[in-house]
Amino acid sequence: MKTLLNKILKECRPYIKQGRLASYIPELLKADKKEFGICVVSADSMDFAGDYDKKFTMQSVIKPLILLMALMDNGEEPVRQLVGVESTGKPFDAFNYSDLALKREHINPMINTGAIALCSLIKGIDYRKRFDRLLELTRKLSGNPELEVDEQVYASEKLTGNKNRALAYMLKAYGMLEDNVEDVLDCYFRGCSIKASAVDLANIALVFANGGIDVKTGEYMFDKKYARYVNAVLMTCGMYDGSGEFALNVGVPAKSGVGGGIMAVVPGRMGIGLYSPALDSKGNSIAGIKALELLSRELDLSIF
Amino acid sequence: MKTLLNKILKECRPYIKQGRLASYIPELLKADKKEFGICVVSADSMDFAGDYDKKFTMQSVIKPLILLMALMDNGEEPVRQLVGVESTGKPFDAFNYSDLALKREHINPMINTGAIALCSLIKGIDYRKRFDRLLELTRKLSGNPELEVDEQVYASEKLTGNKNRALAYMLKAYGMLEDNVEDVLDCYFRGCSIKASAVDLANIALVFANGGIDVKTGEYMFDKKYARYVNAVLMTCGMYDGSGEFALNVGVPAKSGVGGGIMAVVPGRMGIGLYSPALDSKGNSIAGIKALELLSRELDLSIF
Amino acid sequence: MKTLLNKILKECRPYIKQGRLASYIPELLKADKKEFGICVVSADSMDFAGDYDKKFTMQSVIKPLILLMALMDNGEEPVRQLVGVESTGKPFDAFNYSDLALKREHINPMINTGAIALCSLIKGIDYRKRFDRLLELTRKLSGNPELEVDEQVYASEKLTGNKNRALAYMLKAYGMLEDNVEDVLDCYFRGCSIKASAVDLANIALVFANGGIDVKTGEYMFDKKYARYVNAVLMTCGMYDGSGEFALNVGVPAKSGVGGGIMAVVPGRMGIGLYSPALDSKGNSIAGIKALELLSRELDLSIF
Amino acid sequence: MKTLLNKILKECRPYIKQGRLASYIPELLKADKKEFGICVVSADSMDFAGDYDKKFTMQSVIKPLILLMALMDNGEEPVRQLVGVESTGKPFDAFNYSDLALKREHINPMINTGAIALCSLIKGIDYRKRFDRLLELTRKLSGNPELEVDEQVYASEKLTGNKNRALAYMLKAYGMLEDNVEDVLDCYFRGCSIKASAVDLANIALVFANGGIDVKTGEYMFDKKYARYVNAVLMTCGMYDGSGEFALNVGVPAKSGVGGGIMAVVPGRMGIGLYSPALDSKGNSIAGIKALELLSRELDLSIF
Repeated sequence: MKTLLNKILKECRPYIKQGRLASYIPELLKADKKEFGICVVSADSMDFAGDYDKKFTMQSVIKPLILLMALMDNGEEPVRQLVGVESTGKPFDAFNYSDLALKREHINPMINTGAIALCSLIKGIDYRKRFDRLLELTRKLSGNPELEVDEQVYASEKLTGNKNRALAYMLKAYGMLEDNVEDVLDCYFRGCSIKASAVDLANIALVFANGGIDVKTGEYMFDKKYARYVNAVLMTCGMYDGSGEFALNVGVPAKSGVGGGIMAVVPGRMGIGLYSPALDSKGNSIAGIKALELLSRELDLSIF
Repeated sequence: MKTLLNKILKECRPYIKQGRLASYIPELLKADKKEFGICVVSADSMDFAGDYDKKFTMQSVIKPLILLMALMDNGEEPVRQLVGVESTGKPFDAFNYSDLALKREHINPMINTGAIALCSLIKGIDYRKRFDRLLELTRKLSGNPELEVDEQVYASEKLTGNKNRALAYMLKAYGMLEDNVEDVLDCYFRGCSIKASAVDLANIALVFANGGIDVKTGEYMFDKKYARYVNAVLMTCGMYDGSGEFALNVGVPAKSGVGGGIMAVVPGRMGIGLYSPALDSKGNSIAGIKALELLSRELDLSIF
Repeated sequence: MKTLLNKILKECRPYIKQGRLASYIPELLKADKKEFGICVVSADSMDFAGDYDKKFTMQSVIKPLILLMALMDNGEEPVRQLVGVESTGKPFDAFNYSDLALKREHINPMINTGAIALCSLIKGIDYRKRFDRLLELTRKLSGNPELEVDEQVYASEKLTGNKNRALAYMLKAYGMLEDNVEDVLDCYFRGCSIKASAVDLANIALVFANGGIDVKTGEYMFDKKYARYVNAVLMTCGMYDGSGEFALNVGVPAKSGVGGGIMAVVPGRMGIGLYSPALDSKGNSIAGIKALELLSRELDLSIF
Repeated sequence: MKTLLNKILKECRPYIKQGRLASYIPELLKADKKEFGICVVSADSMDFAGDYDKKFTMQSVIKPLILLMALMDNGEEPVRQLVGVESTGKPFDAFNYSDLALKREHINPMINTGAIALCSLIKGIDYRKRFDRLLELTRKLSGNPELEVDEQVYASEKLTGNKNRALAYMLKAYGMLEDNVEDVLDCYFRGCSIKASAVDLANIALVFANGGIDVKTGEYMFDKKYARYVNAVLMTCGMYDGSGEFALNVGVPAKSGVGGGIMAVVPGRMGIGLYSPALDSKGNSIAGIKALELLSRELDLSIF
């Protein structure tokens, strides 16, 4: 396996040149385009290659965890009532959902509007506490108690996140967000700024792959139906408006982030974490997707 | 003329029942639907009827004055570079302009996004000062030095104006607004909350009708080309997505506000102010429009 | 006047280089970009310059005549019930009107969908007869009994007009068009292919400028209210999604066609015809618009 | 299993009352809302209940077979170059894809526009021949050589299919369809009008579930990668703008048709066919979806 991973990294490295670092959060431009790492973890093995332990900010990879926490805190119905699950057919930060009033049907948990709305379903006395619980969950699922926020990136997101502010105020205008916008966004921006490695993402993915059970300890972490909720949403919308291509070419639930990370869930088999910060035009790690395509072909990962 | 005005009010009063008070700013729901007033002013006469001296908040009727002030402070080019002049084919507070990045071509001075952007072109040390200059201009054009902000309505708009916040952050996200959003919106909300009567609107309209000259004193108030800029924009977009019907049925530049006011400019002839707070589905005073239709027919006001 | 016209042509000629011939109807690519003509006609004079007598196909300039004929044949209500009068904020051949079912509010007589729908309101035993009546009206208003269809352009439009077919079938799918699509389009394509000169357009415009009266003979051609209907629609939507700029810069009702013609109506004063086939990105004659801007400034034509 | 199927039909029958027959093809209104049948087939068993052998027209259930045939006739690249695979976030017969020129990215094989385009990739001397090959493939996959077109439904679709005509001419206008529109649509309408039963759909689904191998005979029918292509597209877009909910609640690739049929593919395990003609607001069989939800829960079918 390790040989395979190294071969894949080598083969996919040339794609890095076709990608670009995320520019809309200035701090992300400081990433090193050449970094490229992968980690594959299953019940009885863990393999990795390249910059597998390099830390990067999770960005949108936190969205499935926000969704999970909202599900764990509220059950399925309240989550589904607030945020729908259909693909939008639009970029992740789109405004132009519809000619009609904004409704739950127009958003889903994997686009910014939906993820921001779901932050308001995380329980906690205040939004700092809510974020602490989200961080705690992320640490627990990754098995890494040292996960922390990258304060520079967080500050940069907060400073420049005006599109997210617009989306949040739109939610508020349509009665889909009651709390203070800056409070909610603070939780969201902090979540996006959690630093993790490919290993961390692989470990998180493994829990989703095993229906909420920590396959190594046998510990119950969350209900199997929540794992399925998250996996299903990842399959239809996890890779933004590249989700259809990804379903075809890789064939497993996955989530990408503009920090360059991808977390891929192979139900019943394994969790995969990837890192390569050069992005394609849809905001997905370009070499990361290519590596997953190769890996899927080699290991017959597609669930279809 | 006075007889005609009274006859028109009587004939149009039944339409009030078909309209509804603006509900999105709670304070506006306190208006009295039965109030209905009109004022017609020309170089040598002023006539009025009904609740002609009843005060109401200008709301969007301030937009032509924001545009005018931006023109007076900057000239035509900077204004046109920031905010386009095409009809949007969308409601006044729409989000869904386009699949593309927001651009000047997508907005115009008579919809909220455009008017908010133009506040940033009004000169002043701070936004309080900018608003003071806007109020000063409004007083001067109306010849009424006592115009004031309705503090209740202003507070209500500020509290509930989340759609406008969303629009402003969208402008900021696309590089079309540099200043602090709450500062800019404060100026905008105050402008919308200026209390005026049908007489005040008629007097303002008369200046636009006379190419920037106060027809009574002969005083030069602003350049004729700015009057034409404003009048042309009013003709194509002043009555929101009811502008086409209005051009056909009335045939003069006009601006409505959700407070129930309409200001109509009859180039070279007269200014008209109307007040009736029950609105149609597009946000225009329903009896006010009907009254203007009758008046236009009786006095042959259409410029076409 | 003649001197002025020649001066204007000279001054605007450089803009031709920035424009492009219409390419979506192959036959139109055969036009000569250098041709540039103008004609101004009023109650007591006719002046012209350049290629004023060059024939070109009317294309969308036929739309106000289709609208007029629908009005003359049916009165205002049926016309307004079928086709709305608001700006669409979209290109002239757009599809993406709305998320909702297509309705009259989404279209207007100056975009293709609206004009095609209105062909079905022209009276006649069959669509050949309906077109003959439209041609007859065009001849009568222009005072030129020799106007004919350009058979090459007509054949080219019919062959390649698939977007118009799509628009027509969309009308049919939403119950807004009962007749056979190819029959209706045949009438529309023939209308677009009528050859006229700047002189012809100026003469037609003069009738609209004079409320339906032939100012030279005093003959009543159509009701004044129909002239106003057409003029108002021209003002808000006649220059496609460039109508707002045109209202500002020229300030009179006008209609352009992708054949390079523009017909401008100066209410109560004159009719203007222009020809220059190089178009801007919105499908309007680029030098033609510039010439009208200069002329409007020189003669103070703006109605605002 | 048979007991389970009967129990499920009984439990889901009440949902029929909430649905409505498809009305846009008049002939479909003749269906009997009370009919409700199911068939589940795997390598070694076939079970059914209710109106499992009732014939209905496949409608959109033919779309995966059109896609498959296009893949078999051309390989993946030409198919992918013509028709994208992302969710549209729009109804199946939507027009308003984008503000931009129509492109492959805007459509996918499971919406009408995409399926119509793909008909042009089926090989054959003429479109009658192409359809014959499509019918032949459908017969072969279902193992039912007696499948035929319902001539009444076909005639009804052809007569009333103006929205599909509009979509096809739009494809043609944007250079995505070369052939004669009526010819292409004839093939499409015939395909939609093939009569099949729940048993037939289950048998077809089983081949997709087994990677292109007839599990009973071991016969190779098509390449495994084409099965994955189709299954992946079904998962992200097979249930129209209800695909996200379906992924969550059922969790397998599936395709519905407005005739009331649903074909569901359980990779590696089974094929399922359903029939119940009362539809929900998105055009999916309402009781059929409920039955699949129950079945998925009972048999743990979700692939997530």
